Amino acid sequence: PYKSKMEDPWQKAYDFAVAVARKAGAEIRKAGESEIRVMTKSSTVDLVTKTDERVEKIIIGSLKEEFGEGTHCFIGEESVAKGEPCILTDKPTWIIDPVDGTTNFVHGFPFVAVSIAFAVNKELEFGVVYSCLEDKMYKARRGKGAFCDDEPIQVSDVKDINQSIIISENGTDRSPEKVTKIFSTIQKNLCIPVHGLRGSGTAATNMCLVATGAVEALFEIGIHCWDIAAGAVIVKEAGGILLDVDGEPFDLMSRRMISANNETIAKRIIKEIEIFPVVRDDAPIEKK
Amino acid sequence: PYKSKMEDPWQKAYDFAVAVARKAGAEIRKAGESEIRVMTKSSTVDLVTKTDERVEKIIIGSLKEEFGEGTHCFIGEESVAKGEPCILTDKPTWIIDPVDGTTNFVHGFPFVAVSIAFAVNKELEFGVVYSCLEDKMYKARRGKGAFCDDEPIQVSDVKDINQSIIISENGTDRSPEKVTKIFSTIQKNLCIPVHGLRGSGTAATNMCLVATGAVEALFEIGIHCWDIAAGAVIVKEAGGILLDVDGEPFDLMSRRMISANNETIAKRIIKEIEIFPVVRDDAPIEKK
Repeated sequence: PYKSKMEDPWQKAYDFAVAVARKAGAEIRKAGESEIRVMTKSSTVDLVTKTDERVEKIIIGSLKEEFGEGTHCFIGEESVAKGEPCILTDKPTWIIDPVDGTTNFVHGFPFVAVSIAFAVNKELEFGVVYSCLEDKMYKARRGKGAFCDDEPIQVSDVKDINQSIIISENGTDRSPEKVTKIFSTIQKNLCIPVHGLRGSGTAATNMCLVATGAVEALFEIGIHCWDIAAGAVIVKEAGGILLDVDGEPFDLMSRRMISANNETIAKRIIKEIEIFPVVRDDAPIEKK
Repeated sequence: PYKSKMEDPWQKAYDFAVAVARKAGAEIRKAGESEIRVMTKSSTVDLVTKTDERVEKIIIGSLKEEFGEGTHCFIGEESVAKGEPCILTDKPTWIIDPVDGTTNFVHGFPFVAVSIAFAVNKELEFGVVYSCLEDKMYKARRGKGAFCDDEPIQVSDVKDINQSIIISENGTDRSPEKVTKIFSTIQKNLCIPVHGLRGSGTAATNMCLVATGAVEALFEIGIHCWDIAAGAVIVKEAGGILLDVDGEPFDLMSRRMISANNETIAKRIIKEIEIFPVVRDDAPIEKK
C-alpha cells in the first residue's frame, strides 16, 4: 500500500547511503589497482590502510554535508580507533565500516565491502553493504525487504542442520586460549555434521551470504558494531534472525552474534559455541 | 619467438578445452537457476547432482567427438565413481572435474568451477579452470604463462609467512581422527601467525587464488587428481610451486598437495602439517 512521505522520513537518507556506498566502493577499487601502502594497527593481522581512513572521510564527509553535523551522529571504525565515542544514543546515528575486509583488500582476495547502517532511537532503520570487487549492492530498509542489485533476496529454507553450510571466521586475535576456543567451536559444528564451513573474510559479506541463502548461518565473537549493523538489517529483512551467541536477544554493541536463516538452525549451532569474554563496543574507554 | 606448428601440437586441444569449459559452465549456471535434485553419494557432505553427471557427459562427449575415443584417454570424477580406471598412462589423457564445488553449487555459494587438464607422457600440458558463477576463465599451457580472462596472472611475491593468507579445506571426511588432525594443522598454521585463513570450498578455484596472488598457499590431504590437475598447471605457469605435503616432489595421484607462491612459504607451512593416510587415486580398486 502507498505510504505518504510523512510515514517514510528516511527514504532520502537510504537512497543517499546507497549512492555514497557505491562512490566509496569505486574509490576502494581504484586504490586496489595502485600500490597499497600499509600501516600496522594492533598486529600484523589487523591491517589498516590509508584507503580505509580516506574512504571513511569520504563517507562521513558526504553524510555530514548532506544531513548536518549537529543532528546526526557517526560511529565509524576509523574514528573510534582514534578515540571518538562508540555509544548508540536515540539520535539518528550512522554506523560505518569504510572497508570491511582490509586483509582481503591488501591481498586482493575478492571480498571487500563498504558497510553503512542507520539507526534512530537505537533501532536500525536501514543497512547498505556494497561488495565492491564483486560489484554487488545489498540493501534493506526495516519492514521493506532485502535486495541484491534491486532483486529481492531471502534466506535459505533449510531446517535440517545436516544440510547446512556455516560461516565463521578466526578473527584477528591470536591469543592461544581464544584461538583454541574458536577452533573447538568450529570443529564441533563441523562434526554435527554440517555440509561445510566457509568464510569470506569479511563479516559484512558473510551476513549477505546468509541473506541470499548461500549459507544457513554465521556466528562470531569479537566482531564490532560497524561490521554487522548494515548486515543485521539485510539478514532480518531477508527473513533471517539474529541472536546473541548464548541464545539471548541480539545486542549490536555486545560483539557477539549469530545470524541464521531460522531459529532451529541457530539454536542447534548455539549448543556448540564456547563463549569467551570480549569488551563491549560501548564500554568506557579506560576498560578497553 | 615464433614457433612452427610442429612444435606446438596441442594448441588445438587447448583452445577446444577452453571452449568446452565455457559451454559446460553455461550449463551449470542454467541448472543452478532451475531446481536442483540431489542424489546422495557417500555422505550428506559429498553431494553429487544430476548436473554433475550431465556436464561430465557433455565435456567427455565433445572431446571424444573431436579427438577420437581410441587415441585419447579420459579420467573424470563421475566416470571413476562408476568404476572406470583412474590410471595415468603415457597416452594423451584428459583429467576432468565437471563441477568442482558441488556443495557450493547446491547451496548457491558463489564458487563453482569446471576443471579440465590434459597430460601427455604423464606430464601436464595445459589446464583450464572456468569459475562459472564469477564468469572467470583461468588457463595455462606448459611454458607459456597463466591467464585469467586473457590477462597474465602471477603469484604473490610475499616471502614472510606472517604476511601470508593460507587456504585449506576441511574435506568431506568427518571421521573424528581425520577432522582432529586437519583442525590441529590449520590451527598451528594460523598461530605461526599468518594474516588469515580462507577457503572457497572448491580446490580448483583455490588453486587459481594462489595463481592470482590473492593467497600465498593452499594445502590439502584427500583431494583427487581431477580437483587439482588443471590448477597445477595454472599455479606453476603463474610462477608458483607444487609439493607433496611432506616436502617431496608433487605426485598428481597421491591425493596430497601443497601449492604455494614460493618454496620459503611452502616449507614453513609443511612444518605444521599433520599427515594422515589416504588411498592413492591410482590404487587398485579392491584397495579403495
